[in-house]
Amino acid sequence: MIITVVGLGVIGGSYVQALKGLGHEVYGVDQDQQTLNQAKQEGYIVEGFTDGHDIISKSDLTIICLYPSLVLDFIASHHFKKGSMITDVVGIKSYFLEKALKLVDNDIEYVSGHPMAGREKKGYAYASKDVFKNANYIIIEHQENRKEAIEFMCGFVSQLGFKSVKIMSPYDHDEIISFTSQLPHMIAVALMNSDNQKFDTGKYIGDSFRDLTRIANINADLWSELFLNNKDYLLNSMKSFEEQFDQLKNALLQEDEDMLRLMFNESSKRREKLEK
Amino acid sequence: MIITVVGLGVIGGSYVQALKGLGHEVYGVDQDQQTLNQAKQEGYIVEGFTDGHDIISKSDLTIICLYPSLVLDFIASHHFKKGSMITDVVGIKSYFLEKALKLVDNDIEYVSGHPMAGREKKGYAYASKDVFKNANYIIIEHQENRKEAIEFMCGFVSQLGFKSVKIMSPYDHDEIISFTSQLPHMIAVALMNSDNQKFDTGKYIGDSFRDLTRIANINADLWSELFLNNKDYLLNSMKSFEEQFDQLKNALLQEDEDMLRLMFNESSKRREKLEK
Repeated sequence: MIITVVGLGVIGGSYVQALKGLGHEVYGVDQDQQTLNQAKQEGYIVEGFTDGHDIISKSDLTIICLYPSLVLDFIASHHFKKGSMITDVVGIKSYFLEKALKLVDNDIEYVSGHPMAGREKKGYAYASKDVFKNANYIIIEHQENRKEAIEFMCGFVSQLGFKSVKIMSPYDHDEIISFTSQLPHMIAVALMNSDNQKFDTGKYIGDSFRDLTRIANINADLWSELFLNNKDYLLNSMKSFEEQFDQLKNALLQEDEDMLRLMFNESSKRREKLEK
Repeated sequence: MIITVVGLGVIGGSYVQALKGLGHEVYGVDQDQQTLNQAKQEGYIVEGFTDGHDIISKSDLTIICLYPSLVLDFIASHHFKKGSMITDVVGIKSYFLEKALKLVDNDIEYVSGHPMAGREKKGYAYASKDVFKNANYIIIEHQENRKEAIEFMCGFVSQLGFKSVKIMSPYDHDEIISFTSQLPHMIAVALMNSDNQKFDTGKYIGDSFRDLTRIANINADLWSELFLNNKDYLLNSMKSFEEQFDQLKNALLQEDEDMLRLMFNESSKRREKLEK
């Protein structure tokens, strides 16, 4: 199978690395020639292209690992092989698929995907097949998808090292992601920005503060786009969080130790069974 | 120097291990004979005692690694060597020191401390001198401390692998800790408990959710005690966080992309310089 990965950043780079040894003919498209040279030298791609027009028209599967708006541009400006498949790694789906599906010809199968994996740092230098190891993958099934295409993607993705592969609708995806991914980013930003900077904070932190603020170092353009286009679900998730936070605050205010203990025991129980 | 570590859990166990090779005579006190046997077999303590009365009366330094209320019980029920030093690892200081100092004889120097280190799991099995590596240490200076005692503790602690050792008052400690340690725990609990459990959440998370909820698995008794006895500072920190969170929510509601970007750039900048 001829597979072309577009955008060899952390995710795209991890794709080409995870595909090694699976028997495919893998190509790369990236705007940076040096990245392409490196991926080729390392034996992860047969050839790299800064202009993808030719290779895309021959690919059986195109994996587009670009920012949401750039994915749309890429689809609009390239001709895909009849009967071939396209997938992406975009973090929100309802809004995005509405636009993307209008751009894709009927004889192309568009199976949207979301690898719940990444690094804080950007670029091919931080790519590794370990990025996918033990991570979750979500495949999005929309109305125009053929059953066999979804089944193929399930099998394909399962070979890349992911721990779990789940299929869901764009709406369900955006709802759960507003809670598991977008809300944590909002929390991290708020926590970091609520520092009154009276002390040299970095000297008084432990791993809890480090862990909770790691993602406060956030790509402002990408995440603004993701948040604004998933506004309703995200506002709901933020509201649910605030209700719990207020409940803790009130328990503290009223020195209600039983209520605090109850809530701590509940969160402990939930956290323990989270990945079991 | 004869040093006795009381309570060989994660922190106490890490103390005896970090002390190895520094030329002291190290003893352990723990209620669990098996833990004492193991620490002795591994060469970290000369001898272990389930009853500490005898060894405490001979120790030059006693490091008490117990829960806050148990530290007070321990001090009240033991006789310390004249001119010796006691330290602890209790997570709040103003409230605690007020009680502790009443129990300590005038000829004993009580230098309270806070290693900002730990593990999610409890017990000697998870102790390691790596727990202290690159962690922050806070030494608490109260009115009755002699300057030389504080200086001694600074030097002593610096040999154990900590990245930074800072001296501050009990009040400053409790203020900064309400932000860097207690608030993150409240946030993690609220996030975990705000899950509506409509989906099998664990299958749809990435490292961001994992990182933000790790400490939602929380020791309910210990943390209730720490929170309630630092109520005012903690409520202040919670309020500051909520203000930032509300600001994000409003920006999202009003689709104010510029404001979102501004806040994301600010949190990114702060996070990047946090430990520099």
